[in-house]
Amino acid sequence: MAEPDHETADDVVTAGMVVIGDEILSGRTKDKNIGHVAERLTEVGIDLREVRIVPDIEEMIVEAVNALRARWTHVFTSGGIGPTHDDITADAVAKAFGVGIDHDPRAVAILKARLAGRAEVNEARLRMARIPFGAELIEVPNGMPGFRIGNVHVMAGVPAVLEAMMAAVIPTLKGGRPMISATIDAQRGEGLIATRLGEIQKAHPATVIGSYPYERDGRYATNIVVRARDAAILAAACADVEAMVADVQARNP
Amino acid sequence: MAEPDHETADDVVTAGMVVIGDEILSGRTKDKNIGHVAERLTEVGIDLREVRIVPDIEEMIVEAVNALRARWTHVFTSGGIGPTHDDITADAVAKAFGVGIDHDPRAVAILKARLAGRAEVNEARLRMARIPFGAELIEVPNGMPGFRIGNVHVMAGVPAVLEAMMAAVIPTLKGGRPMISATIDAQRGEGLIATRLGEIQKAHPATVIGSYPYERDGRYATNIVVRARDAAILAAACADVEAMVADVQARNP
Repeated sequence: MAEPDHETADDVVTAGMVVIGDEILSGRTKDKNIGHVAERLTEVGIDLREVRIVPDIEEMIVEAVNALRARWTHVFTSGGIGPTHDDITADAVAKAFGVGIDHDPRAVAILKARLAGRAEVNEARLRMARIPFGAELIEVPNGMPGFRIGNVHVMAGVPAVLEAMMAAVIPTLKGGRPMISATIDAQRGEGLIATRLGEIQKAHPATVIGSYPYERDGRYATNIVVRARDAAILAAACADVEAMVADVQARNP
Repeated sequence: MAEPDHETADDVVTAGMVVIGDEILSGRTKDKNIGHVAERLTEVGIDLREVRIVPDIEEMIVEAVNALRARWTHVFTSGGIGPTHDDITADAVAKAFGVGIDHDPRAVAILKARLAGRAEVNEARLRMARIPFGAELIEVPNGMPGFRIGNVHVMAGVPAVLEAMMAAVIPTLKGGRPMISATIDAQRGEGLIATRLGEIQKAHPATVIGSYPYERDGRYATNIVVRARDAAILAAACADVEAMVADVQARNP
């Protein structure tokens, strides 16, 4: 019997994301963090496999964090680490890991340095320095730190701060072999290409072929996106897609 | 012993959403449907409580649909109902409900009417007329129909079509007593208001008070959003928030 395929196991690194916040679920705030996290992960070959958006309710945060950290290589959370009563992510993550939480001397020092000469270190602001025991800080130039515990990275909901945290975190992660992709613009609707595209997908099982319809000047068209981890495999599938598209276009002028 | 509070049970109507699509998880496409569904539901008093984004993998769609339909009053899905091989939502929902699926005569008739004189009814296009047994169609003027089965509403991923489907579905839903909300703009950072805001939240348990920091002209400020289902309860909490904000602003010029 063969050994498990070590290369394949190494190649595929996965992630899940938990977005925390009533304001996203009420529609008041439109999330911008999922797309950013997805793009940064894709660049380094980490496959984002599942996102859950949950309200500011401790048991739902705990449930989502525990479900995703057991299932995926890395987990990222956004939101709920500010100073107000509705910021409960740090406590929920501590609960999910079954560890204590308290003011962290490293985070308190950062808070004091940030506030020095500008504002007092009060109880509410100190709340932002509550970090679960055993966590490492994710430090950023433009905000209070997030933290990493186990495979869970806890980040701010404010997009500029989340982006800084992702920039700090990405170099520390075990990445995978990045997916490379190519887009073929078929100037015809999905209904004309779908059957043959499905056959091409079957003939190239190491690729993932997606089909994204759009309208241009009142006419249906389709972006076909082919993804693979290997350039030769990608090129072979793309050649088949391009030949099929050229043929469909010629037959349906 | 008192009867269960019938009014309260009637007042709270919940929803979950499943977004299906590799293109959202890769970052290639930025989702616009969650915010739209959230806004439309909030308007009619339905609380969106949980969203899951999953890839084009049948078992993950089945798992998410089954988890959410058992938990929330209504479920909405977006994506994966087109004609290509990666459109597997209808089959996955049929599997989740344990029912069969086949070309639906009502959907086939709609397809033929849409294509009449423009294009042939081929195998791929007929795929869009596959509807689980027992489902009702969600008809729209600008696309093929979605469908409702049990408490699950299956909708397109293309935002214009999803929006038309939501417009068709909303009048058919049992809504709740809408949340009403008021926003108070505190011209100070969260660190100055958080402790007293937490006390106000405790004193007004029938409200949900959210705190959303932002920066204006390099100075921190906070939008405080108070939500409740009752106007008098909302007004009482807002009065306390406004008095607190005025006091904090006066003490911290």
